[in-house]
Order: sequence, then C-alpha cells, then structure tokens
Amino acid sequence: MADNVWPNYARSSKGVILDMCGVLYDSGEGDGVAIPGSVEAVKKLKASDLKLRFCTNETQASREKFVAKLQRLGFDISVAEVFSPAPAAVAVLRKRGLRPHLLVYDGLLPEFDSVDKSDPNCVVIGDAAQKFSYENLNEAFRVLIGLEKPLLFSLGKGKYYKETDGLKLDVGVYMKALEYACDVEAEVIGKPSAQFFQSVLDDMALQSHEVVMIGDDLVNDVGGAQQCGMKGVQVRTGKYRCHPSGAHFWGVCQRDDMRTVTRTSLRKFPLFTHLALGLRGNQNTNKCTSK
Amino acid sequence: MADNVWPNYARSSKGVILDMCGVLYDSGEGDGVAIPGSVEAVKKLKASDLKLRFCTNETQASREKFVAKLQRLGFDISVAEVFSPAPAAVAVLRKRGLRPHLLVYDGLLPEFDSVDKSDPNCVVIGDAAQKFSYENLNEAFRVLIGLEKPLLFSLGKGKYYKETDGLKLDVGVYMKALEYACDVEAEVIGKPSAQFFQSVLDDMALQSHEVVMIGDDLVNDVGGAQQCGMKGVQVRTGKYRCHPSGAHFWGVCQRDDMRTVTRTSLRKFPLFTHLALGLRGNQNTNKCTSK
Repeated sequence: MADNVWPNYARSSKGVILDMCGVLYDSGEGDGVAIPGSVEAVKKLKASDLKLRFCTNETQASREKFVAKLQRLGFDISVAEVFSPAPAAVAVLRKRGLRPHLLVYDGLLPEFDSVDKSDPNCVVIGDAAQKFSYENLNEAFRVLIGLEKPLLFSLGKGKYYKETDGLKLDVGVYMKALEYACDVEAEVIGKPSAQFFQSVLDDMALQSHEVVMIGDDLVNDVGGAQQCGMKGVQVRTGKYRCHPSGAHFWGVCQRDDMRTVTRTSLRKFPLFTHLALGLRGNQNTNKCTSK
Repeated sequence: MADNVWPNYARSSKGVILDMCGVLYDSGEGDGVAIPGSVEAVKKLKASDLKLRFCTNETQASREKFVAKLQRLGFDISVAEVFSPAPAAVAVLRKRGLRPHLLVYDGLLPEFDSVDKSDPNCVVIGDAAQKFSYENLNEAFRVLIGLEKPLLFSLGKGKYYKETDGLKLDVGVYMKALEYACDVEAEVIGKPSAQFFQSVLDDMALQSHEVVMIGDDLVNDVGGAQQCGMKGVQVRTGKYRCHPSGAHFWGVCQRDDMRTVTRTSLRKFPLFTHLALGLRGNQNTNKCTSK
C-alpha cells in the first residue's frame, strides 16, 4: 500500500463513519466487551471537528436496545447517530407494498411491528444466529419457492463475525444458501449497499470524498465505502483476517498493525492521530499468516 | 425438444441408470411411499435385456439400511446394484490420507467407521437435515477456517428434494453456505460428479453412449449424465419443477407429461415403452407453470 493514499485522506476529510462490532467492541455473552482504547477513540473523535456516525449491520436487537448496550460499555453514542439495516428494510417494504416472512433474531422483531406480515410475498433474513435452524431455513425456502417470483432481502451479507468465544457465521452465509436453493439473487439492505451508505452521507450533509469509513471487514466496510467514493481504513481488530482478494480493494490502509500506521504517518495525517492511537488495542487478534 | 433425439437412444441403449428418491419413491415419515407404477417399472426393466443400476445421492442412511427400506417398499433391489456417495467419499479420504470432520446424518455415520477422524484436516457434509443446526454448521465452519487450506467435500450438491410433507433443503444449499463463508469451492462426491457416474459405467461394463440416466433432477441427474456422454430423461415426479436454465441441457426428454411422451414415441423407441408406462404415476405433482 503506497503511503501517498494517506495525506489525501487527511486534507479533505470532514467526517468519519465507524463500524461497531469488531471495531468498538467484540460481541459475546451479555454485552460483550469494549475493545481496549475504543471508548477513548470515540471520545476524541467527538471532541474533534469531524462529523461522526456509526454504521452497523447488527440485526440481533432493535437500535434502542443495541445503543443502550453500547452505552453500558462506556460509549458516548445516541440512537440518532447509529444506522442499521432494519429501519432501512422497513422503509423499503413500505415503499414497495411488501409483506415479509421474517427470519430474524427475536430481539429484532419489534423493528417490524408496524409491517403487515400476513400472506407473505417476500422473505427478509437477518443475523438470526441460533434461529437459523434447519426447520426455520426450510420454512423460509418454502415461502420463497412458492412465490411466482421469489424475492429475498438480506440485512447485510457478512460471512462471519467475532464473538468473545470465537468466529460466528453471519447472515450472508444463509443468504447464499437461499439464493442457491431458489435461483435468486438477494437484495442486500445494509452495508455494503451503496444506498445504505448514501443515507448516512445525506444525514452528515457531506460528500463521499470528504468521509472515511473505518471497519474490520474488507468487503462490507472498506469495499462498500470505496464503491461510494469514500476512503476505507481496515483495523486489525474484530474478525480481521487476510482477505484472499484484498488486492482488489484499492486505497485500503492495510499495515501489519496499527502501531506501524501511527508511527509512520503521524506527521502526515494529524486528523487521524487520535483515532489511530485509540484503536490500537486488541490488534492482531487474528494474525495475518499469509504474508 | 426435437423428437429425433429418441430413436437414437433406443437403438444404442444397453443399460439404464435410475435415480431413486423422487423417481421410485418419495421420502418422508417411516419408509416414505413408492411412486405409483415404479415397482412394476423396475420389475419390467429387470426382465428386459437392459443392464440396470441405481444411483442415489441419498446420505441419510448406510447403503444396507437404505436398500432394506426400498425392499420393504416392494422393490427388487440389492446393495450391489446401488451407488451412493458415502462409500465413494471413504475411498477418496483413504487415498488422500484425509481425516474428516463429519457433518452428516446420524444414520450415515457407520459408513465412516473405518476412517480416522482425529485432528480433522477436511470437512465432509452430507444431507444432515435437522442436524444442520446453526451450532453444527458453525462448528464445521470453524474447522474449515482454521485450516491453512480449507478442504470441503460435499456428498452431492442438490438444492432440495421432495418428502411426503413437502420440499426439503438438500446438502448443496449448505455446501454453498460454507463455500461462501470460507472462500472455497467444495469437491462434490456423488451426482453430478463425472467420476461418480464413471464408476457406475465401469461396473456395468458399458460405454457412456450406451446408457440412459433417468431422474427427476435436471442438474444432478440429467445434466450430470450428459456431461459424461449419457442421454438423460427427466421424469415429472418427485421434485420436478421447470428449471429456469433448462434450455442449456441439450437432449433432455422434457414433455408436458409422461402420457405425452409415451403416446408420441411408442413405435419409435420400444425399449422404453415399459419404463415410460411404468413411471407415469404421480406425474405433475409439481406442475410447470412457466410454460
């Protein structure tokens, strides 16, 4: 990665979008755990003149409950600053007059309270975790295959995420399963959908080239942001692993560790000094072994 | 489909390979049910001068138990005539010195009794049905992602099959899920693998152009057989549905129903008269609605 990517970031950046799981905290039993240094990093960003938003594909709880959990972990975060797929899905369903069969975590159901779910004409799946039983997936499949034109929405397309006890399969894996079973391509709501990122940029009142997205997922965070014209930074926390096709993501800050990033670049991009320092904790939990 | 495909079949055919689930019987509670006319069709084929083998991707029971079930349903079938993926998988594992993590139905485990399963260096999945829980799929994923080079074997790649109470997701769906999660391509053992079909042809001591494969699955039965140079016949029983890409399978006998096939072709291909008549029962259980 050429160093000359960084100075351009700093000169033009007016805002930061932060992924949450794997960047600010690792999920797991109870509330999970804050990643060392991340609470302070958010504080420093809020004290700066950068606009800040949080963008998550978290779909195991309503935004209210999710934000309350982050607050208990020590983060200064409000519901209005957090963008997640469920409210975006509800807007799409309403606009297109669709009645979903839901395969989501129980905690997310309240987000869909206002939506007509009778006689379903589409399927919506989120990160249902243990609810992804054979029976439940088969039920969603039967709804889809019974439709004249199967219509599948997936709240994200992540492959896996890290919990405190190890990696866990994410919704994208089950999206692929249903896509194959029914010969359909799902409509993804959430990262890395360009429409989803644009809604965050609209809320910030910034242009894409003025904003940096920071996440632990090369495809959904960094790649998705780049597709919209933002710059992407990948932190080596959370589920970070070497991505076999990482070379395709141009302009990604990928270094051996955050210590290297901050040491070599401090003078070049002062705006990111605080953030980079703040997010150093817990680095290399999934060490890159391929190079 | 041009009629002129059929006369060539009949003139050169010396053997028939029959798919089983959805062609001879529908699986379900207990032993499932024989498809009307299928027991008689097998009898007639055995009384003819055609060589006959059975080829299934059934992986919910050992071959012995599976054949015993078919015998209880009235079929004159022996274990030696039946080809299924598990014994083929065991041969591959032995040849390559591999130790599998198994995600298969309990009934299939005895097939792998002789295989070393300690410290697994690959994953083998079969049609595990209810055992495809989130926890079990996640466990298989963790084994794969923990390997330097993830190695996944799938006993078939079917999308779904029909049981007496409706369609059920098949192993291929979970194969796709793990492929996506781990950025790998599974090695398929069973239909439609050319190696698998060749082993059946070897056993029959026939050339591929001398054999007709009959099944309800356009991709795994008909398409797989065609890849090997056999002719394919699709019956409209079992899970039969219009295949969106059916047009790509050249030489498939696809008619509105078997009645049409037998009526128009009786004088042209007498060898298949008995079979076609015998398999007419239960047709159109999944009626084609697209044309």
